[in-house]
Amino acid sequence: MLKLYFAPGTCAFASHIALAEAGADYTIEKIDFKTNQQNSADYLAINPKGRVPSLVTERGILTETPAMLAFIAQSFPKAKLAPVDDPFAFAEVQSFNSYLCSTVHIAHAHRPRGARWASEESSFADMKRKVPETMAACFTLIERKMFRGPWVMGEQYTVCDPYLHTIAGWLAGDGVDIATFPNVADHHKRMSERAAVKTALAEEQG
Amino acid sequence: MLKLYFAPGTCAFASHIALAEAGADYTIEKIDFKTNQQNSADYLAINPKGRVPSLVTERGILTETPAMLAFIAQSFPKAKLAPVDDPFAFAEVQSFNSYLCSTVHIAHAHRPRGARWASEESSFADMKRKVPETMAACFTLIERKMFRGPWVMGEQYTVCDPYLHTIAGWLAGDGVDIATFPNVADHHKRMSERAAVKTALAEEQG
Repeated sequence: MLKLYFAPGTCAFASHIALAEAGADYTIEKIDFKTNQQNSADYLAINPKGRVPSLVTERGILTETPAMLAFIAQSFPKAKLAPVDDPFAFAEVQSFNSYLCSTVHIAHAHRPRGARWASEESSFADMKRKVPETMAACFTLIERKMFRGPWVMGEQYTVCDPYLHTIAGWLAGDGVDIATFPNVADHHKRMSERAAVKTALAEEQG
Repeated sequence: MLKLYFAPGTCAFASHIALAEAGADYTIEKIDFKTNQQNSADYLAINPKGRVPSLVTERGILTETPAMLAFIAQSFPKAKLAPVDDPFAFAEVQSFNSYLCSTVHIAHAHRPRGARWASEESSFADMKRKVPETMAACFTLIERKMFRGPWVMGEQYTVCDPYLHTIAGWLAGDGVDIATFPNVADHHKRMSERAAVKTALAEEQG
């Protein structure tokens, strides 16, 4: 049994979808950001970073979305969520996910989380103003250079797909019209219709 | 034959060390940041992100340090640079590397690269002032909660070690005294004495 700690609207949704796609036996537990539960002593004992997601396994606790997605793909090989027996193709999956994690998610985070990297209100406002530009630049690159179609990696659905779906879902709030990126927009719509995505969404809202 | 595009002083050093540790057959090519070569048409054809590192393989080009490190470990299993046959232990390696990439490297980047996320000089100055605090917070977590010793993952040297070594090498420039973190400082010294690290350094300077 796996247990996923999540908060609604966060990147934890990617791992949640992947667990549902994998047919994994899992439970979820919500961390309440409104009461700063992510920095409570109980949760810091689970994840000393004070972030979501965290995945409790029989062997120990994992954090960081790209690592969790690779773990889910490798642990449930029948679900074929990554080319786990091909180091190059697997690295392409990981490269895409690393870009989402370390560039795209970070670009987005400068809207709500500027205090991580600066101290002045004027800096936070400046950062927020730039987010539509940086997020549009990231998605232009994804749309034109990375996305193969119909799925991120081409014919085979992988753990890149729930991760892209999750972050593409933040575009509207970041002031970027997803319709500017037809491949991404079509992917987002098709993902929304998948059973695993509907299941994960219902579980987070339930 | 593998080919690594690098720039001195960047995170490309981690993959360079890993290639040397793996006993891989590789060449390196320097990208000159002073002439903005990373954004030249020739280099953008290799890596449309305009960043280093890039790793040219027989199958295609890989980018993103965590993906490249996992690829090197999986491609040269005899070098035992990661527990590639154990999904959980491998995920622990990947989790550490993802933290370095998406949190620690990003904290550092707010000193030289503030223009990625803001537009005003006052914001850049504000970001720079906060870097000693954010980098110290990251390394406090690494020192106390993540680093197992004698290597990052414990008894077994992995691709986490060259990556930590590379980023720990930025602490002085970021205004943080590495001696504050005895485990990290000792690791940094022992890494500096490894043949692969000396080889990679000599090749980058040569």
